Amino acid sequence: MEKISCDVLVIGGGPAGGVSAVTAKMNYPEKEILVIREFEKQLVPCAIPYIFGETLGSTDKDIGSCSAAKEMGISTLLGQVKDIDFKGKIAFTGNEAIHFDKLIFATGSKPFVHESLRHSLALEGVFTVPKNKELIDKAKNYIEDKKDIVIVGTGFIGIEMAMELASVGKNVTVIGGSKHILKGAFDAEIAIQAEEILLNAGVTFVGSDRVCEIIDKNGDNIVNAVKLKSGRIVDAQVVILATGYKPNTELARKVGLSLGAYGGIWVDEYMRTANHDIFAVGDCSSRRAFITKTASKVMLASTSSAEGRVAGSSLYGLKYMKGFSGTISIFSTMVGDIAFSSAGVTEDEAIASGMDVVVGSFSGMNRHPATIPDAQKQYVKLIATRHGGQIIGGQVVGGNETGEMINIIGLMIETSQSVYHIMSMQVATQPMLTAAPTNYPIVMAAIMAIKKIEG
Amino acid sequence: MEKISCDVLVIGGGPAGGVSAVTAKMNYPEKEILVIREFEKQLVPCAIPYIFGETLGSTDKDIGSCSAAKEMGISTLLGQVKDIDFKGKIAFTGNEAIHFDKLIFATGSKPFVHESLRHSLALEGVFTVPKNKELIDKAKNYIEDKKDIVIVGTGFIGIEMAMELASVGKNVTVIGGSKHILKGAFDAEIAIQAEEILLNAGVTFVGSDRVCEIIDKNGDNIVNAVKLKSGRIVDAQVVILATGYKPNTELARKVGLSLGAYGGIWVDEYMRTANHDIFAVGDCSSRRAFITKTASKVMLASTSSAEGRVAGSSLYGLKYMKGFSGTISIFSTMVGDIAFSSAGVTEDEAIASGMDVVVGSFSGMNRHPATIPDAQKQYVKLIATRHGGQIIGGQVVGGNETGEMINIIGLMIETSQSVYHIMSMQVATQPMLTAAPTNYPIVMAAIMAIKKIEG
Repeated sequence: MEKISCDVLVIGGGPAGGVSAVTAKMNYPEKEILVIREFEKQLVPCAIPYIFGETLGSTDKDIGSCSAAKEMGISTLLGQVKDIDFKGKIAFTGNEAIHFDKLIFATGSKPFVHESLRHSLALEGVFTVPKNKELIDKAKNYIEDKKDIVIVGTGFIGIEMAMELASVGKNVTVIGGSKHILKGAFDAEIAIQAEEILLNAGVTFVGSDRVCEIIDKNGDNIVNAVKLKSGRIVDAQVVILATGYKPNTELARKVGLSLGAYGGIWVDEYMRTANHDIFAVGDCSSRRAFITKTASKVMLASTSSAEGRVAGSSLYGLKYMKGFSGTISIFSTMVGDIAFSSAGVTEDEAIASGMDVVVGSFSGMNRHPATIPDAQKQYVKLIATRHGGQIIGGQVVGGNETGEMINIIGLMIETSQSVYHIMSMQVATQPMLTAAPTNYPIVMAAIMAIKKIEG
Repeated sequence: MEKISCDVLVIGGGPAGGVSAVTAKMNYPEKEILVIREFEKQLVPCAIPYIFGETLGSTDKDIGSCSAAKEMGISTLLGQVKDIDFKGKIAFTGNEAIHFDKLIFATGSKPFVHESLRHSLALEGVFTVPKNKELIDKAKNYIEDKKDIVIVGTGFIGIEMAMELASVGKNVTVIGGSKHILKGAFDAEIAIQAEEILLNAGVTFVGSDRVCEIIDKNGDNIVNAVKLKSGRIVDAQVVILATGYKPNTELARKVGLSLGAYGGIWVDEYMRTANHDIFAVGDCSSRRAFITKTASKVMLASTSSAEGRVAGSSLYGLKYMKGFSGTISIFSTMVGDIAFSSAGVTEDEAIASGMDVVVGSFSGMNRHPATIPDAQKQYVKLIATRHGGQIIGGQVVGGNETGEMINIIGLMIETSQSVYHIMSMQVATQPMLTAAPTNYPIVMAAIMAIKKIEG
């Protein structure tokens, strides 16, 4: 068995692992950092849906670059850690014994499939959406000459895949277990706008009903259809199970780390396990929500990167006192030409959590005057506490700018801004780039929230 | 003389006046609000350059809407206030005596022309860029069949006009009094990028030299050329003086209000003059900079709107304690297909002001992976105090999203965020909408600034 030594060992080369390693090297340049990962070519996870249409069209166009890490002097090893001796500080692969001082788990997540459907994964034509080039290539090749696709799951991966597959002529049916798509991120009135675009693109959306069986009529182990709870049968040459992900914590479980909510590795706000030499970041860590402080299933490369920055700078003592205080669940997606984004709690979630909130919203145009040729509609909704007006959530619908507008709202949530501050916030506006100065939608939504608070 | 009565009289119907009136009505619905303005049709000021190319193509496409104010029950009067009796609280037009309780000056700004060139305004073919439909129509019509255009001034109005006029085949020369364009908003390395686009669009840019004479060779009062300080002659059938604006405070001066920096009406942070029944907002008010606290010439409809929101809610007592603490000078523009934006102080200004600062910058792509078809380069620069890392300025170059990215940085400046907070800020990223989560440029620029601070 080969003996290897490093100061910091990072298990996993996805966004969380990569950012942890780079941050560690920046903060402790004298330390040897080693990243061990399973695959030579690592997919950019959030762009996987775009492999299935013409946007990217192939996995070769969705490969993450490691050049920055290499240039910084971070080492990489292809392999898989199978066991760990915490006392001796050694990680074992099949062939190597890796001595470390600090260890970061960044083992990511794996597709989650409901127990009742798990056995159907053995059928030809049934796929999940793993972050694995070989398996995604296999799915893409299989789908190539098929027509009828059923996507199970209405999260953003399911919806992005549906739009991409419809754009290359597939007959796509999306089946969710909830009345509206993108549940959890958007309130109904916004989800409905996304559903309309989905329908206009020729995608069939089946809401409240859900898939209870995946069928091979001919008994030949090739999928033909799915059966819904209502008894309805939907023909399917391909079934894609986009029903979420679960923390990849088999190794952590085996070596006895404490697991928290939803099976993630328990960590504190500096991403440390109970053993302060062992950290966990990204989808394999257990998470809670920034506002509600309850366990969270949210998995996003962007917030994983923030966790990696906290871990990477906290390895040898707490250098920066800002830890990771829970996910603000901030994300954006495109449905057709319209961008949808969300941060913090939705109105539904706030009410279900027993919060006393008000909502301020504003509809306008993303250019001014509205006669600017590429002007599009723009909608902003803010959720604020009734007492004090603290901004705890927001949703934006509009053009490409939506992707950065949610980051304005995210910063407001993360820094506890109130609508009373935002009502006279200074912003830049420009005819070709933004809404009008007199009707800047985030400011207007804040003003509308104040109106509600003050009755 | 007709006698009119109102509670709040707003003089001026531009962005600052309009927002003041709307905010006043929202905060004090029982009060009668009257806006008096000079023109039936009010141009949207920031879009005036786009009238001169094909983007808008005519002043009719650049008219601000007053429907919201009308719906709220705000009255409008066409006219001009010529005198004010502060003791009796009466404003006089030629025909009306308007009794008021509170008065808001929102008289805006007028083109500024250097004394040495002022007499040349009498020549045919010499224009300024006033916010006046009739005069803009006149300029546009005159330019229609002319070829050689000289634009004096390299601020954003000058540059936007140059690009629009070049796009319809004009031979445009921009002449500034400074080495680089967009001085004050951008540091040299960024201004140079905008200059390259200008040159590629066929516009000639003459830097350090400046226009000292506007010439009618034939003595027929029709402009033929401009003469530069260096002696160089540039042919010109049209000369556009885009050399800034000055507060329109003739009335304020006449009625004895105290004027502050650059001739603007002196106001406190709640936009009140020394007489707390009299307010001033927008370009006619005197301003100081948010960071340096020195007098500021910056005139932006967006920050004027923020002032209007402060004034409109502070008319009858200080309802919200957040006043206007100086302009953060936040703005964006398009040069060709590239957007440029800036907020707070530039590096140059910071150094000139004696500040001990560090700069963090990052170049990347605005999509991820970079193989996404419409991916563009993106550059972010942050200026932070060396001691404490407070973010005091930022500049962004990139695609359309730049217009909202600067609003993230603006909020950081306005709420005194430090790079230590921003280094692990949570953001939303999405392949079609933003940079990669691992390399989100504002976060990366903050990290680079920390590196500089910590040596």
